Amino acid sequence: MNRLICYVLRAGVIGCALILTGCAGSALQVKEIGNFYVGGRQVTLSGLPKTEISTAAGMAPYPYDPNGDFETGGMYVNFTKLDKPKAKFPLMLWHGGGLSGVTWQTKPDNSPGWEQFFLRAGHDVYVSDAVERGRSGWSRYPDIYTSTPVFRSKKESWELFRIGPNYQSSTSKTAFSDTQFPLDAFDMFARQSNPRWLTNDAASQRAYDEYVQKVCPCVLVAHSQGSSFAITAALHAPDKIKALVLVEASSSPDPAKVAIDTMKGIPTLYLWGDHIQDSPLWPRFQGVSRKYFDALSKLNKDANWIELPSLGIKGNGHMMMMDKNSDQIAAIVNQWLKSKGLTE
Amino acid sequence: MNRLICYVLRAGVIGCALILTGCAGSALQVKEIGNFYVGGRQVTLSGLPKTEISTAAGMAPYPYDPNGDFETGGMYVNFTKLDKPKAKFPLMLWHGGGLSGVTWQTKPDNSPGWEQFFLRAGHDVYVSDAVERGRSGWSRYPDIYTSTPVFRSKKESWELFRIGPNYQSSTSKTAFSDTQFPLDAFDMFARQSNPRWLTNDAASQRAYDEYVQKVCPCVLVAHSQGSSFAITAALHAPDKIKALVLVEASSSPDPAKVAIDTMKGIPTLYLWGDHIQDSPLWPRFQGVSRKYFDALSKLNKDANWIELPSLGIKGNGHMMMMDKNSDQIAAIVNQWLKSKGLTE
Repeated sequence: MNRLICYVLRAGVIGCALILTGCAGSALQVKEIGNFYVGGRQVTLSGLPKTEISTAAGMAPYPYDPNGDFETGGMYVNFTKLDKPKAKFPLMLWHGGGLSGVTWQTKPDNSPGWEQFFLRAGHDVYVSDAVERGRSGWSRYPDIYTSTPVFRSKKESWELFRIGPNYQSSTSKTAFSDTQFPLDAFDMFARQSNPRWLTNDAASQRAYDEYVQKVCPCVLVAHSQGSSFAITAALHAPDKIKALVLVEASSSPDPAKVAIDTMKGIPTLYLWGDHIQDSPLWPRFQGVSRKYFDALSKLNKDANWIELPSLGIKGNGHMMMMDKNSDQIAAIVNQWLKSKGLTE
Repeated sequence: MNRLICYVLRAGVIGCALILTGCAGSALQVKEIGNFYVGGRQVTLSGLPKTEISTAAGMAPYPYDPNGDFETGGMYVNFTKLDKPKAKFPLMLWHGGGLSGVTWQTKPDNSPGWEQFFLRAGHDVYVSDAVERGRSGWSRYPDIYTSTPVFRSKKESWELFRIGPNYQSSTSKTAFSDTQFPLDAFDMFARQSNPRWLTNDAASQRAYDEYVQKVCPCVLVAHSQGSSFAITAALHAPDKIKALVLVEASSSPDPAKVAIDTMKGIPTLYLWGDHIQDSPLWPRFQGVSRKYFDALSKLNKDANWIELPSLGIKGNGHMMMMDKNSDQIAAIVNQWLKSKGLTE
């Protein structure tokens, strides 16, 4: 990235931080708080054995039939609409794998997260739980979902999310010396984990595409696995996505296999934390997204690639929206949106 | 219930509805939107086979070890605090079995639910997802949870929740002729279902008790299975619970086996919908709670039992907070809280 852009971003961050600090104590003027489901379809099970259950202490058992009609593939979304938003379009936050919309909410150290930041900055904010996670619920396997779920250990969270290079046990783990992650809140973060399936991508994409049709035109901020769904959603409905912010995209499509030129009019920001090269997996993951970015930037003048260390911002990991300097990074995103004419 | 109380409640409902209608279009002055986890502990798994997984489209497989440290038993809570609450204490909403905090939020027909009602009425509102449900996530079984989960079919939702007497299939089902449930939104409601386990009551109670210690003094509104946890929480911390509203309690403790006199100072309202006698199970479930109420009302002058049909309000089922007249019922609860001096 050239020096001028870096300079503007640095100045913007400071200006923005001052404005937001000024607002933080005042009441938020909220027009509406609400939620809805998108996606979903009915499935019918038969042939499973009937039994009896008791569902509360002191309750005598009653008959339970596990067969019948069920809804599957729905996705929960909560939103907060402001009385007088400054941003031109609502902002959607799509979380990553093995997590839920809580990613964007209050941070594990109990300070405000990006949902709160962007509300204070004047955006209507939408937070979703991917299909199979959080308030979206999940379906019986292998009868409806066709595989078994995967659970993320604390070791994987610690190492894959680049909090530190090494986790042996909860009492013996090494953080990067400059990590911005609030280490005392790591166990609290681990409580946000959600089991995931590796066979639900199609159902998830259907729900995300329906979500875009319902809420957009909008700005879409996606994290990690959410980035894959977000790019595909943009390819499916390019007129609906006014900007795409991809925070630590864990993957991107092969540009030769998609109609990448449909994204030529969508301002797109790839945003990365620190310590990519200190991770056994992230150079490879990032390389896949770099290939997509390189192809996109040839036809899209508003495609940007920011590695935070290039701005002098060090120590951020994969969960940068929970890091101690999360406001600083959100302000960079907000300033970038401002530079594209999408907010005041 | 005597005629005078009925009359006061009816008048209160009308007055309250007028006040709230006046507010509904104006901006909500919000001091803080946030969330946190309570409960939870670490468990360590070993001996499970290692494998390789790919977690996003286009991503090459990487090693996956299902063993290690995990957090289990945490409970997610979201809250909205008003700039100038009218109520003396925050109001906690605890959902029932096989569901999540979404119970209290926007209704399946997209109109505002009780979370929004009580915010507009001037309460700080807390909404939780029970352990194992929604944004609380869940843990591997049988390794951590010791049983298999139970899934609720649409037939069970329809019949057990007293929407109607009979569900044969999604296209052949009978509703009560006076049902208040928004029938067109039934499939949307079914998307709110969450699997449940029958072996997590102790972990759930621990999280609820910790939640009470963190947030209260407060008013506690609980639904169905949540009522059991709520009564136990009140028995564990009677000084913290300023009022207890039990909406369609699916069970209550045996009064002879608990220190019921610790609840003598807690205003307690049992609230019931219609068609109890038309259900094969609810007369029995209600009978268990009636036994507790009868014992409680002997020592607690602020224990009340309201069956909505006795107020001339017909057709409400188990999910009355989603029924078409949900505001009318919330206003009864609010008026009851007012009568106990807990809100303006």
